[in-house]
Amino acid sequence: MGLSSRDMPVSWLMEKALENPDFVSLAAGFTDNSTLPVEFTKQAINEILDDPSTAQKHLQYGTTRGNERLRQIVCDQVNKLDEHQSDLDSSQVVITHGSQQFLYQFSELILDPGDIVIVEDPTYFVVLGLLSSMHIRVIGVPVDERGVNVDALNSIFNDLKTQNLLHKVKYFYGVTYFQNPSGLTTPHENKKAVLDCLEQYEKMAGHRLYYLEDAAYMHLSFNNQAPSTALTFKEHCDRIVYSSTFSKPYSTGIRVGYGILPNELVNPLLFIKTHHDFGTANFLQSILVSVMDSGHFEKHLSVIQKRYKEKCDLLISGLESSFPEWVHWTRPDGGLYVWLQLPSHMDTSINSKFFQLAMENNVLYVPGSLCYCDASLAGEQGDTYRATMRLTFGGASTKAIDHGVDRLAQVCKKF
Amino acid sequence: MGLSSRDMPVSWLMEKALENPDFVSLAAGFTDNSTLPVEFTKQAINEILDDPSTAQKHLQYGTTRGNERLRQIVCDQVNKLDEHQSDLDSSQVVITHGSQQFLYQFSELILDPGDIVIVEDPTYFVVLGLLSSMHIRVIGVPVDERGVNVDALNSIFNDLKTQNLLHKVKYFYGVTYFQNPSGLTTPHENKKAVLDCLEQYEKMAGHRLYYLEDAAYMHLSFNNQAPSTALTFKEHCDRIVYSSTFSKPYSTGIRVGYGILPNELVNPLLFIKTHHDFGTANFLQSILVSVMDSGHFEKHLSVIQKRYKEKCDLLISGLESSFPEWVHWTRPDGGLYVWLQLPSHMDTSINSKFFQLAMENNVLYVPGSLCYCDASLAGEQGDTYRATMRLTFGGASTKAIDHGVDRLAQVCKKF
Repeated sequence: MGLSSRDMPVSWLMEKALENPDFVSLAAGFTDNSTLPVEFTKQAINEILDDPSTAQKHLQYGTTRGNERLRQIVCDQVNKLDEHQSDLDSSQVVITHGSQQFLYQFSELILDPGDIVIVEDPTYFVVLGLLSSMHIRVIGVPVDERGVNVDALNSIFNDLKTQNLLHKVKYFYGVTYFQNPSGLTTPHENKKAVLDCLEQYEKMAGHRLYYLEDAAYMHLSFNNQAPSTALTFKEHCDRIVYSSTFSKPYSTGIRVGYGILPNELVNPLLFIKTHHDFGTANFLQSILVSVMDSGHFEKHLSVIQKRYKEKCDLLISGLESSFPEWVHWTRPDGGLYVWLQLPSHMDTSINSKFFQLAMENNVLYVPGSLCYCDASLAGEQGDTYRATMRLTFGGASTKAIDHGVDRLAQVCKKF
Repeated sequence: MGLSSRDMPVSWLMEKALENPDFVSLAAGFTDNSTLPVEFTKQAINEILDDPSTAQKHLQYGTTRGNERLRQIVCDQVNKLDEHQSDLDSSQVVITHGSQQFLYQFSELILDPGDIVIVEDPTYFVVLGLLSSMHIRVIGVPVDERGVNVDALNSIFNDLKTQNLLHKVKYFYGVTYFQNPSGLTTPHENKKAVLDCLEQYEKMAGHRLYYLEDAAYMHLSFNNQAPSTALTFKEHCDRIVYSSTFSKPYSTGIRVGYGILPNELVNPLLFIKTHHDFGTANFLQSILVSVMDSGHFEKHLSVIQKRYKEKCDLLISGLESSFPEWVHWTRPDGGLYVWLQLPSHMDTSINSKFFQLAMENNVLYVPGSLCYCDASLAGEQGDTYRATMRLTFGGASTKAIDHGVDRLAQVCKKF
C-alpha cells in the first residue's frame, strides 16, 4: 500500500525510552514496571504446565476467535461492570494480540480508502496514524469533561449531508475511559447521545454507523467508579463495537486484547484475523485464563489502581508546585495520562524549540499536536492545539516523575 | 475493505479438528502434541522470571522490531545454516506473531489492489486467500522436485510484458522447504534461476521484483540436510525477503515468527507493524531467547525431527498397503505434508462427493484444489488439480494416522 506521510512517533518514543537510561520519559505509554505481576504469572504458568494431561494443549494452536473460557470471562466482566446487564454472548468476542490489533482489523474490515471516520479531538494518536495509512479522512469533534460535543457532532453530520458525503462515514471512535491522551472519561449519557446521533444519520448514510468504544483503560480507575459501557444501551447493540485489553491492566508483555462485535461482523472479522495470524498466541490466553480464574487479576488490579493513583497524585502535585500558573491540566480519575494546556503562543510540537529544549534537558513528552486531526491548522485554534502536551505517569518511577516534572518546568520557565 | 469471496478453510478445518474428538484430521497443520516442549518451556520461564532484577522487563512492552538478542539469534541461525555465510545484520530482522503475520504485513506494504504476485502452483492456500482479500491477481507457475519451472516463469513474464502488465508484478512467493502443500523442497540452484529471472525483468517492471522465500518448515528436516537459503546469493540480497518461524519447530502456542528484509524495507515494515500491534508479545520472545541460549531448541529439534520422520513413514506405509495403485504421492524429506495425486476423473474438492464421503467416514483432508491459483479451470488440467489431496502427519497421533489412512482408502475404493 505504500507509506503514508505520517511519522511513526509511538515506536520512536518507545525505543528512545528503552535505549537511553538517563532519559526521563513522560511520553511512552508503558505500564508501571515495579508492579508487573511476576508472582501471579509464575503461579498461573505452573498451574497450566504442571498437569501432564493438559499441559501440551496450551503450547498448541488455538482457534482464530480465541480461547472459549477467556471469551466467556470477557462477557462476564463486561456484564458485571455494567449496571444494566448487557446480555453479551461469548460468540461475539474475538481475542486479539492487544486491542491495537483489534482496532486495526476492525478498521480494515469496515473501511475503504476515501472513507470518513469521526474521532474525538484530541484522540489516541496511533489510531490517527493507522487511519492515515489506510487513506481515511478523519474528522475531529471536540470533547471535554461532559464528553463529546453532540451539537458539534450534529453539525459535522449536517455538513457532510450537504456535501453528499454521508455514505462515506463508517464509524465514530471514542476512547471512553481516562482517555488517551486527555485523561477524560465519557459520561454514560453522552454515549447514548452519540449513539442516537449515529442512528439518526444511518438511513441517509445507507448503512450502519458504528460506535467504536475503546475501553482500553477502563480497569485503571482510581476509585472503582467507572461509568457503564455503551453496550448497556441494548437498543443500540447492533451499532456498538467494543474494544478492550488485558495488556494495560495485567501485563503489556503478555499482549492480549479483545473486541466485542455485533453478530454479523464476527465472521468477517475472523476472516481477516485468519489472514493476519490465524489467532492469538494460545499460551498467552491460557496464562490469562488461569490468572482470572484464580482471582489474581482482581488482586492485581487493586495493587495497580493504588499505585497509579499515587503516581498520578505525585505528578499533579509536582505540576502544582513547580509549573507556572498559566499552565492548566486535567485531573484524571484513572488511566495513565495527564493533559496540559499551555498558552496558545507556546508551540510544543515535535519540531518546536520547546520540544528541542526538553530533549536537551533529558525529558520526553508527547506533543499534544500529534493527537489532533489537524494540528497544522492556522490561527488561534491551531495555536491552541500546538500548545498541549500529554504526560504519562505509567512507566516512570516516582523519582523519574519528580525529575521529569522539574526538567519540564525549567523548560516552561524559559518561555 | 469488505469481504473477498474466498472461503476461510483453514480456520474452519482447524476448529473442526479441535471440536470433534472422534474425527481424524489429516487436514489442519497442527504440530505433534505429544512432543510439545513442556519441560523446556517451564525451565525457560523459571529462568527469566526467577531473577528479581530482570523478571519484570519480560512482562513489559518490548520494541516494535523485536527482542535484540532474538534477532541476533535469527541471524546466527541463518548464517550457520548457509554454507556460504550470508552476512545478515540483525537490523534486517523483524519479529512477528508467527510468520503468517509477516507474510501479511509484507504483502500489505508492497501490494496495491490490482497488482500481480507469482506463486508456486500449488502453494500455501492461506496466502492465496490473503492475496485474494487484497484484490491481487495471482499467477501460478508449475513446480516439481526440480523446483520452479523456470521456462514457464519466463513465459509468464513474457506474456505480461506483451500485455504491458510487468509493472503490476511485485513479488514471487515460494515455500522452499518441504513445501506446504506438496512436501517438495526447492533445490538451491533453482532459487538462483528464479532470482536471475526476476532480475532480468526488473528494469522493464520499473521496480524491484522480490523473491519472498517462506522457509517455515526448514527446521523440520528428517535428515538435517536442507539446501541453503536464497540469502546465500549475495548478488541478489536486495531482492530477497525471507520469512520463517519458531512456531512449527518449537511451539505453535508460543507464536513467534520473523522476517528478514533488505534494509530499505525495514522501516516501512515497522511502520505497518506499529499500526497492527506495536510489536510482538515480549514475554513470548523472552521465552524463546532462553530456550535458544540454553541449547534446548536444538535438543527439541532432534526430538521432533525423529518423531515427524516416524509419523511420515507410518503415513506412507499406510498409503502403500491400503491405497489403490493408481494413487500417487510425494515422499518428503521433512515438514508435515504428503501430497496425493489421484486419477483426474476423481474430484476431491470441497463440494465433491468424495469429500462428503470422507466427512461421513470421520476423516478430514485438505482438498488440493484449494492450493491452486485456478482450480476451477475447465479441461484436463483443472481435472488434475481437483484430483489432489494434502495429508498431514503433524497433529494426528500414530493411531489416528492409521485410522485416517484406512478410512480414506475405503473412500477411494468406492470410486
